[in-house]
Amino acid sequence: MSLTLGEIARLLALELSGDPELEITGLASLLDAGVGQLAFLFNNRYASQLQQTNASAVVLRSADADSYTGSSLISENPRLTWARIATLFDPAPKPDKNIHDTAVVSSTAICNATVSVGPNAVISSGVNLAKGVVVGAGCFIGERVSIDENTRINANVSIYHDVSIGKNTIVHSGAVIGADGFGFEYDTDTATLVKIPQIYSVKIGDNVEIGAGTTIDRGALNHTRIDHGVKLDNQVQVGHGTSIGAMTAISGCTAIAGSTKIGSYCLIGGAVGIIDNIEIADQVEITAMSLVSQSIKQRGRYSSGTGLMPARLWKRNIVGFAKLAELIKRIRALEKKMKSP
Amino acid sequence: MSLTLGEIARLLALELSGDPELEITGLASLLDAGVGQLAFLFNNRYASQLQQTNASAVVLRSADADSYTGSSLISENPRLTWARIATLFDPAPKPDKNIHDTAVVSSTAICNATVSVGPNAVISSGVNLAKGVVVGAGCFIGERVSIDENTRINANVSIYHDVSIGKNTIVHSGAVIGADGFGFEYDTDTATLVKIPQIYSVKIGDNVEIGAGTTIDRGALNHTRIDHGVKLDNQVQVGHGTSIGAMTAISGCTAIAGSTKIGSYCLIGGAVGIIDNIEIADQVEITAMSLVSQSIKQRGRYSSGTGLMPARLWKRNIVGFAKLAELIKRIRALEKKMKSP
Amino acid sequence: MSLTLGEIARLLALELSGDPELEITGLASLLDAGVGQLAFLFNNRYASQLQQTNASAVVLRSADADSYTGSSLISENPRLTWARIATLFDPAPKPDKNIHDTAVVSSTAICNATVSVGPNAVISSGVNLAKGVVVGAGCFIGERVSIDENTRINANVSIYHDVSIGKNTIVHSGAVIGADGFGFEYDTDTATLVKIPQIYSVKIGDNVEIGAGTTIDRGALNHTRIDHGVKLDNQVQVGHGTSIGAMTAISGCTAIAGSTKIGSYCLIGGAVGIIDNIEIADQVEITAMSLVSQSIKQRGRYSSGTGLMPARLWKRNIVGFAKLAELIKRIRALEKKMKSP
Repeated sequence: MSLTLGEIARLLALELSGDPELEITGLASLLDAGVGQLAFLFNNRYASQLQQTNASAVVLRSADADSYTGSSLISENPRLTWARIATLFDPAPKPDKNIHDTAVVSSTAICNATVSVGPNAVISSGVNLAKGVVVGAGCFIGERVSIDENTRINANVSIYHDVSIGKNTIVHSGAVIGADGFGFEYDTDTATLVKIPQIYSVKIGDNVEIGAGTTIDRGALNHTRIDHGVKLDNQVQVGHGTSIGAMTAISGCTAIAGSTKIGSYCLIGGAVGIIDNIEIADQVEITAMSLVSQSIKQRGRYSSGTGLMPARLWKRNIVGFAKLAELIKRIRALEKKMKSP
Repeated sequence: MSLTLGEIARLLALELSGDPELEITGLASLLDAGVGQLAFLFNNRYASQLQQTNASAVVLRSADADSYTGSSLISENPRLTWARIATLFDPAPKPDKNIHDTAVVSSTAICNATVSVGPNAVISSGVNLAKGVVVGAGCFIGERVSIDENTRINANVSIYHDVSIGKNTIVHSGAVIGADGFGFEYDTDTATLVKIPQIYSVKIGDNVEIGAGTTIDRGALNHTRIDHGVKLDNQVQVGHGTSIGAMTAISGCTAIAGSTKIGSYCLIGGAVGIIDNIEIADQVEITAMSLVSQSIKQRGRYSSGTGLMPARLWKRNIVGFAKLAELIKRIRALEKKMKSP
Repeated sequence: MSLTLGEIARLLALELSGDPELEITGLASLLDAGVGQLAFLFNNRYASQLQQTNASAVVLRSADADSYTGSSLISENPRLTWARIATLFDPAPKPDKNIHDTAVVSSTAICNATVSVGPNAVISSGVNLAKGVVVGAGCFIGERVSIDENTRINANVSIYHDVSIGKNTIVHSGAVIGADGFGFEYDTDTATLVKIPQIYSVKIGDNVEIGAGTTIDRGALNHTRIDHGVKLDNQVQVGHGTSIGAMTAISGCTAIAGSTKIGSYCLIGGAVGIIDNIEIADQVEITAMSLVSQSIKQRGRYSSGTGLMPARLWKRNIVGFAKLAELIKRIRALEKKMKSP
C-alpha cells in the first residue's frame, strides 16, 4: 500500500504543506514513525515530539503548523482525519461476494445476490440477508434472523433465532446474540428451578459495533434493544430485556443485568457492573469498574470503588472501612463532648 | 401461535374468570401488552397497572382478582405460571432428530438414534450421546465426552476431552468446557513457567444451565464439579478443581478461581470475584461485584465495594479511604485526650 | 495408563524409597488419593496428611521423608516434579498429523507437512503454519496469519488477518485474536461515531498460553504485543496497542484497556481492571479485582477495593465512605479545638 502525500491531500481535501510527491506507506505515532510513515499531532501537549519524529510527514492543526518544518497536512480535527486516512491503509481483506461451497444455507433463507457467506457458516430457515451482508466462516445464523444492508458478521459468531440486526453494523468473532436470558422461578413442589422461556428476541439498530466475545441475551417479556450507533467493546454482557440508547459506548467486560434502561450518548467505562431493573439517564459517564446499583437520573460522571495503593496499606485501610459506621458515631460523640464542656 | 384463554386454563389447570374464547397470541408485561396478549401481575405493588393495561387477559392471585374487571386466570404463583405458559408460546425451533450430512462424527462415537447433531459439528472418538441429546452447529465435542439424556448443546460450543454432562442440561453458544486450568510452576533452572498438565476433567450434573461464553476449566488434581440444578449465567469463569453445589445460581461475568468449594442454594450476583482455595457455605448470597477473599462459614448476605457517587465527590472520598488507618489513630488520640483533661 | 514407581523415578531422575514395582495409575491430592495413586506433599504445613493418605506413594522433600513410612520419591521441588509426572499421565488426545478432509485450506496457504488441521477449520490465503502446528476443529485462521513451530490452537478459535504467533504457544477454545480495537471519533458534522480502522495487528511470542474466551484486539497505531512466556487465563481482555512483558501471568476475567504497557514478571490477579495509556513496572503484583487507574512505577504488591462483610454492615459503611472527605474535615476541626483550649 502506497500513496503520495499529494494523493492523500486530494482524497481528503486537506491543505498540504511541503512535498506532494512523498511516498506514504503507512501510519504511526510521532515517536514510532519512520521513513515513509505519516504521523499525527492529536494534541499540542505533545508538540515537542514534532522535533523528534522521523515521520515523512505529519497531520496537524493550522495553529501547530509553525512548530514543524517538514511536510504536513493541515486538519482542524486530526483524530477524525486519522480515522479517514487509516481507511486508505487498512489491510483488512475484502470478503468474496459469494456463498462458499461449504456453507450450509437453508432453502428457505433469502440471500441477496451480493451477500458473502464464509466457509462452514450455517444460515437457517427463514433467514433474510440483505444487500452486501457478510457472514464469516463458522457463523451460526439461527431461524428467521434478519440482517440488514452491509452489516458484517465476523467468523464464529452465534446468533439465535428471530434476532434482527440493522444496517452497517459490525459483529466481532465469538459474540453470541440472542441466547436465553437468565430467568428461573423456584418451584417449591418439585424443589427445582423452573426455566422461564425467553420468548422475545434481540433488536439491534444501524451502525452498531459489537465486540469479540460480547453476549446479548434475548428477552422474556420484551425484546432486548441496542439502538442505532451503539458501540459495545469486547466481552460486554447485556442481560435480557435491557435497552441501550443511541450512540452510547460501553468499554470491555462491562456486565449489564436484565430489564435495565441505559440512555443515549452515555460513556460507560470498562469492567463496570450495572444491576437489573434500573434506569440510567442520557449522557451519563461511568468510570471504569464502578458498580451502578441504583438508577441515575442526572447526566454527569459517576464512580465507585477505591483507589489503588500498596497492599500492606490497603489491608489496614479496609479494616478502617469495616469500622466506618462506628467511626462516625465516635466522631459525633467527640463533637458532642467538645460542645458541652 | 394462538391459544384461547380457555385452552390455556385447561392446559395449566387454572381457574378462569371471564371469556374462555379470547384468542391469546403472546405474552407481555402489563404496561406493554396489547390486544391478544396475556399479562401478569407478579406483585400487588403494581396493582395500579391493572387499570392501565391493554392486555386481553391477566394472570393474577385470587387476592388481587377483585382489582381487575377483565378476563383473568387465577394463580397463587404468577411467576411460575408465567414460566409454564411461556413454554406454550416459545418460538424456539425444534431441532431435527438427525445427524446433519456435514457433521463429522467419529466411527467410535456412540450416538443414540434420537440425537440431533447440527451442521459442521464435530463428534470425536469415544463420545457418548444419549437419547434426545442435541448438539448445535459448529460444536466441537472432544474425545470420550459423555452427554446424558435430553441435554442441549447450542451452536459453537467447545467441549474438551473426557468431560461428562448430565441430563436435561443446557449449554449456550460460545461456552468452553474443559479447557486447561491455569497452572504453572516456575523453574529456576530454565527461567520458564512449566505448564502443569490438567489431567482431570469437568463433571456436570443434571438440570444445569451454562450461559453463553461461560468457561469451566478442567482440573489438575481433581475434577471440576458443577452439581445438579446449578445455573450459570453468561461469561462466568470457573477455575480448575472448583466445585459448585446443587441449585446454586451465579449471575453473569462472575469470576471464580480454582480449588474453591461453593455450597448449595447460593445466590451469587453478577461480576463477583471469588478467590481460590476457599469455601463458601450453603445458602450464601453475594451481592453484585463483591470480592470474596476469604471463606464464608455462615449463610447470609455479603457485600464489598463502595456505593456509586458523582466522580468529583468520589475522588475526594478515595483520598479519605487511603488515610483510613491513620484517621482511626487520630480519632483514638482525640478520645484519649478527651478522657484525660 | 500405568507406570511403576521405579519407571517414574528413572524417567524423572528421582531418588526412590520403598517398592519400585508399585503400579501407579494416576495422581491425586494426599486426602483424595487411593490405591494406585501417587500424591504430593507440596508444603510441610500439610505433613499431618501423610498419616491419613491412602496413596500408594508420595512425592516429598528429603527433609519430610522421615515423616512418611510408605514408598516415596524424593524431590526438592515437589510442584515442579508434579508438573513433570502429570505429563506422563495426561489423557489429552494427540492430534492427527494431517489436514482433515473437511478443512478449507487456501491454495496460497503454506502448511508444513507435519501440521494438523481439524475438521471444518478454515485456513485463509497467505497463512503460514510451521512444523508441528495444530489447528483445532472449527478454527478460523485469517489472511496472512503466521503460526510458528509446535503451537497449538484449540477448537473454535478465531484469529483475524496478519496476526503472528510464536513457537510452543497454546491458544484455548473461544479465544479471539486480532479483532478490531475499540476506537471511534465523534464527527460533529454527521453526529456519528466514525470508526478508526485498526490497521496494525497482534504479535504474540513463544511459550505463551492464552485462555478460553480471551480476546486480544489488534492495534490502530501500533501492534498489540504479548511477549515470550506470558500466560493469560480465561476471559482476559487485552485492548488495542497494549503490550504485556515477558513471563507476566494474568488471571481470569482481567480487563486491560488500550495503549497500556505492562512490565515483565508481573502477577496480575483475576477480575482486575487496568485503564488505558498507563505503564506498569516489572514485577508488580496486583491482587484480585483491583482497579489500576494510574501508572505503577515501583515493583511491589498493590490492591484496591474493600473487604467483604455482611450486607447489613456494608450498607452502613458505604454511607460512611460517601462522607469520608467530610469526616476528615470534622476530625481536623476537633483536633484544632483540642489544641486551642
